[in-house]
Amino acid sequence: MKKFMDEEFLLSNETAKTLFHNYAEKMPIIDYHCHIDPKEIAQNRKFDNITQVWLGGDHYKWRMIRSNGVDEKYITGDGTDREKFQKFAETLPKAIGNPLYHWTHLELRRYFGYDGVLNADTAEEVWNLCNAKLKTDALSVRGIIEQSGVKLICTTDDPADSLQWHKTIREDKTCKVRVLPAWRPDKIMNIERPSFAPYVRTLAKASGVEIRSMDDVYAALRKRLDFFGEMGCKASDHGVNYVMYRPADSAEIETIFKKGLSGLAPTAEETDKYKYALLLFLAREYAKRGWVMQLHYGTIRDPNTRMFRQLGSDTGFDTIATRDAAQELVRFMDALFQTGQLPKTVLYSLNPDDNEMIDSVIGAFQGTETAGKIQHGAAWWYNDTKAGMVSQMTGLANLSVLGNFIGMLTDSRSFLSYTRHEYFRRILCNLIGTWVENGEYPWDEKALGKLVQDISYNNANRYFGFGL
Amino acid sequence: MKKFMDEEFLLSNETAKTLFHNYAEKMPIIDYHCHIDPKEIAQNRKFDNITQVWLGGDHYKWRMIRSNGVDEKYITGDGTDREKFQKFAETLPKAIGNPLYHWTHLELRRYFGYDGVLNADTAEEVWNLCNAKLKTDALSVRGIIEQSGVKLICTTDDPADSLQWHKTIREDKTCKVRVLPAWRPDKIMNIERPSFAPYVRTLAKASGVEIRSMDDVYAALRKRLDFFGEMGCKASDHGVNYVMYRPADSAEIETIFKKGLSGLAPTAEETDKYKYALLLFLAREYAKRGWVMQLHYGTIRDPNTRMFRQLGSDTGFDTIATRDAAQELVRFMDALFQTGQLPKTVLYSLNPDDNEMIDSVIGAFQGTETAGKIQHGAAWWYNDTKAGMVSQMTGLANLSVLGNFIGMLTDSRSFLSYTRHEYFRRILCNLIGTWVENGEYPWDEKALGKLVQDISYNNANRYFGFGL
Amino acid sequence: MKKFMDEEFLLSNETAKTLFHNYAEKMPIIDYHCHIDPKEIAQNRKFDNITQVWLGGDHYKWRMIRSNGVDEKYITGDGTDREKFQKFAETLPKAIGNPLYHWTHLELRRYFGYDGVLNADTAEEVWNLCNAKLKTDALSVRGIIEQSGVKLICTTDDPADSLQWHKTIREDKTCKVRVLPAWRPDKIMNIERPSFAPYVRTLAKASGVEIRSMDDVYAALRKRLDFFGEMGCKASDHGVNYVMYRPADSAEIETIFKKGLSGLAPTAEETDKYKYALLLFLAREYAKRGWVMQLHYGTIRDPNTRMFRQLGSDTGFDTIATRDAAQELVRFMDALFQTGQLPKTVLYSLNPDDNEMIDSVIGAFQGTETAGKIQHGAAWWYNDTKAGMVSQMTGLANLSVLGNFIGMLTDSRSFLSYTRHEYFRRILCNLIGTWVENGEYPWDEKALGKLVQDISYNNANRYFGFGL
Repeated sequence: MKKFMDEEFLLSNETAKTLFHNYAEKMPIIDYHCHIDPKEIAQNRKFDNITQVWLGGDHYKWRMIRSNGVDEKYITGDGTDREKFQKFAETLPKAIGNPLYHWTHLELRRYFGYDGVLNADTAEEVWNLCNAKLKTDALSVRGIIEQSGVKLICTTDDPADSLQWHKTIREDKTCKVRVLPAWRPDKIMNIERPSFAPYVRTLAKASGVEIRSMDDVYAALRKRLDFFGEMGCKASDHGVNYVMYRPADSAEIETIFKKGLSGLAPTAEETDKYKYALLLFLAREYAKRGWVMQLHYGTIRDPNTRMFRQLGSDTGFDTIATRDAAQELVRFMDALFQTGQLPKTVLYSLNPDDNEMIDSVIGAFQGTETAGKIQHGAAWWYNDTKAGMVSQMTGLANLSVLGNFIGMLTDSRSFLSYTRHEYFRRILCNLIGTWVENGEYPWDEKALGKLVQDISYNNANRYFGFGL
Repeated sequence: MKKFMDEEFLLSNETAKTLFHNYAEKMPIIDYHCHIDPKEIAQNRKFDNITQVWLGGDHYKWRMIRSNGVDEKYITGDGTDREKFQKFAETLPKAIGNPLYHWTHLELRRYFGYDGVLNADTAEEVWNLCNAKLKTDALSVRGIIEQSGVKLICTTDDPADSLQWHKTIREDKTCKVRVLPAWRPDKIMNIERPSFAPYVRTLAKASGVEIRSMDDVYAALRKRLDFFGEMGCKASDHGVNYVMYRPADSAEIETIFKKGLSGLAPTAEETDKYKYALLLFLAREYAKRGWVMQLHYGTIRDPNTRMFRQLGSDTGFDTIATRDAAQELVRFMDALFQTGQLPKTVLYSLNPDDNEMIDSVIGAFQGTETAGKIQHGAAWWYNDTKAGMVSQMTGLANLSVLGNFIGMLTDSRSFLSYTRHEYFRRILCNLIGTWVENGEYPWDEKALGKLVQDISYNNANRYFGFGL
Repeated sequence: MKKFMDEEFLLSNETAKTLFHNYAEKMPIIDYHCHIDPKEIAQNRKFDNITQVWLGGDHYKWRMIRSNGVDEKYITGDGTDREKFQKFAETLPKAIGNPLYHWTHLELRRYFGYDGVLNADTAEEVWNLCNAKLKTDALSVRGIIEQSGVKLICTTDDPADSLQWHKTIREDKTCKVRVLPAWRPDKIMNIERPSFAPYVRTLAKASGVEIRSMDDVYAALRKRLDFFGEMGCKASDHGVNYVMYRPADSAEIETIFKKGLSGLAPTAEETDKYKYALLLFLAREYAKRGWVMQLHYGTIRDPNTRMFRQLGSDTGFDTIATRDAAQELVRFMDALFQTGQLPKTVLYSLNPDDNEMIDSVIGAFQGTETAGKIQHGAAWWYNDTKAGMVSQMTGLANLSVLGNFIGMLTDSRSFLSYTRHEYFRRILCNLIGTWVENGEYPWDEKALGKLVQDISYNNANRYFGFGL
């Protein structure tokens, strides 16, 4: 029996161990897709207690605790931080096989030096230990980032955002990590929501462009794209329910836009047409700028109406969608490819059933700008599990060129999540190590060492053009 | 090489063996979802020969034998029992990797003390051995149940059923197993079938309510629900082609119902609206009563028209359905959650592609009534395989809290199928044992022993409220 | 660590090794589904260099090289053969885990005696070695076929084809392999394409039937079916986007056909109705003749419009389709079963998500003509990977009778691809060997040896009625 989560965690053979410890482990981290708040980096926030860090905004954990029958009071409600921590600690041991079990203990080991097991009995001990350590500079936001070897972070930012905290960070010579904005234009995409018309006004103000037509929208967005570009942005991030192909002429889009602007909800068909037109526009802008388009789909957002009204979005209620996704996806890609305006693209589906389909789609639209121009993005969210990663990488290897894969992201709201890169790298090295041990790939330490380093770090740096 | 199906069958490491032999193996059985006939328990039926037990109604086996090119005469036709057994024995060795191979040999070992292998050559020996043993009390229906450690059985019963055999069993002090009815209202749901109008009359008679309107239907069903409740019912069982979300106002439902009652077939859209309305009504009743709603979908029923006409339903011709299932499923759940009327629910899809989707859906609608209020049900029917169970439990572990899982059911028509619980427990213990051996979960014998005992037995007892 | 691709490649235990080396390895090959050109067998073509053989028409490899960012010049363009080989060799090491990596090295070992590893550095050595060997008779087309143990090949042929090369081969007493045509009527199916009307004229000419109506189409096709039958044809091959069920009366089909014949494009609905009618007609003809109907679906053809215009079809751009496939598939099968006109059928989906669904569908429409009348075809194209084959065979074993499986095909355009049968057999023997080693199936060398020989060769011979 292997010791629980020791040095060789997830590494089942010697080749895997060599690849991980000698090559992957020491590589720095690029976290090109996450949801942390740049303000907290700028201000180098410290946390009062472990509940703040772990349970303040992590909807993965909320969902797990709810599945144990715990009252919302002790999840997002007015329970004390200590009570909430206890509920978490009581639930965790029952979540055997859940990546939260591994993430939690990796974080306890790497950041808090705790080698024990968290459960109802040890909660008090862990609570005290963590809270004491959180007072130290090593566990300030920047302390965590630095000890994790993070060289670059892309946050997720609205086009109307002033990026003031990015400016602050950039001007702060003591800050050792590069923090870049990523362009997330969901609000201008979501014409069906009540928030659309007010948001158009926000965007108008931010861009200094009066917005009365689609041309104004495009002009305003171009200004903001330019500004984001000046701030170092290299990537966009689109969360869509599905990738649509709904061509319509510009007059129709104009009519739909006016409807949305006037506060009327467009029909579902109109909504899709508008979104498609806007996504095409944006994709072409990304192509022009050399940015990466990240498209993730395959979820149903806010399906629990009562809890959405109570807690809002991103609170642990989204589910995986099932959908006939391929047809529209390829027609969208094709429309851009036909005119030579398909940007570097990373496709993610939150439904693991789509893995092989995506692996086939990326092969149909590659280009010469860079090796692996069209990528199947890492297994995250529902797929951010050992099984999910093995499945995503096996499919990618089977149907594409794994050596060009840009690797892991955290998608996290927590600064302690950088251990997810370690988790990924261990699984990557074990997968490749197992192939080598089984005689399915020749043992060539130098070549394989480079391969895992590329997937761990170099490919992302090259692909996005971060210039590290 | 491990010996074929010895004591350590499916157990690949020491932790798995410890967990199974010291904890899971000895736990009693709750079979909360099966299709056996309570009359046979009441009368303590004995079987004339092994063909009666194995091939009398088991459409899994019929399907396998048909796939070997065997004529229907030797499956459901007028071949002799001995001939039918021979065809089964000839087919079985070719069904390598099929759970029927394992189930058959587990049953031979546990109930008949036969350690050999069934094939064309040994068929005569097995036939004679089994038939001799079937004459003994140990292999009467109750003998089988008792030696299997079965404490509680839920049969599947129509709302109009008199439950007379349940009464007989309840009054029989010599019967050591509790037998409860489960509510399966498919006939009142299936308004599109010719059997609907006659069935409404049957229901009217059983309930003593004259049925001329939907309100009458509701009143009649409430009466029967009350009666089932008095008889100990704790669970319903709905076999739907898909979970629909098709709201309509009550006037429209009334019109559709009248159409069905008059013997006219409603349109597909009308059928769905009626079913949705009725399912909502029933779900609310279950919630009120603390019953569990079991919903299984993902099949196409009776797709082979010619064989359906010849043999009827449940004869081995149903297939797995593919369908965009998530959207309507979550809207159905949401409709009930909004008003606080979502009962304890177990979701099963017969299509294994839906596993992760369901694992995500259950997390969106949990509640505080009990840990794991919304469950992803066990892998059964097409998924009742080693691969299917590993997939279901891995997904559940990844995305939910495995420790709250209510575990296995047989879904069987045969009294020898209790070994499927053993099959499941071995796979469960091996899965968990492997995690522990790999250092992915700490070795804590007491905690893990409890965990596998909970999943094997305690969780189902607690969840349904059986009070054992 | 196992040596890279040695004698025990993919064989992880002793039982697997015994089954492969003593039983499967030595069996001859029936390649019942491929896309090689019979002219090259007739003329016993020799190749000038390895690029001609490997990169002349293999869109799997083109796709891989494109995914490495390589310019089309070095793939299908006017780069020299040596340059193209270099680009392939540079890409290959990054394609770790891709079956192309294994296929390439298997072919280097079996046909060229090269035990090294192909990469950018060894490309020159491999180029020279291969080209020298390609000059020898051993690597003429027939030399390759003979040393591979291929006994029978089915090519893929248009109904209007004269089959002249098949005649030539048949009359050539020095040719030791049987080469049969297979009927691939895609052109007469694809009424939506501009090529339809001209093709009808081609078919008219080939059949000697003037075609002005559907009855004429049927008459012409019957003539060609007869002719193909005389030439030894035993199998058809339909590549459809999806299996449709769209019944329409013959008058409507007639109208649609006339539209297509006049060069007008039918609507999507009309196209499906025409295809459904024609597929039903053909299926009935196959049933009458005892032919096998192969149906493969689950792809989007030519989704990249620009590259399609540049390079045409089958150039590496097709993708996996996602689709609700079950409902129409079973209704199509049912329509044929009802009238007793369902031929022997092999169902393939290129989307691996459909595996279990297909495994269930085949069980619903079996017959007594032969064991395993309805088959789930081998994992090929996107699924022609170790993971894909294990998944296809595990599903088939779980839900059907693996012992009746007709096994592997190459689907290849290259004469070096016969090693894919070796690849398949190793994976088959390892899967079964692992079950035996784990105690999940009894060790019975004779029975298991026969089982793997049946799946490797005998079942296909029996199933198609090749009479070898």
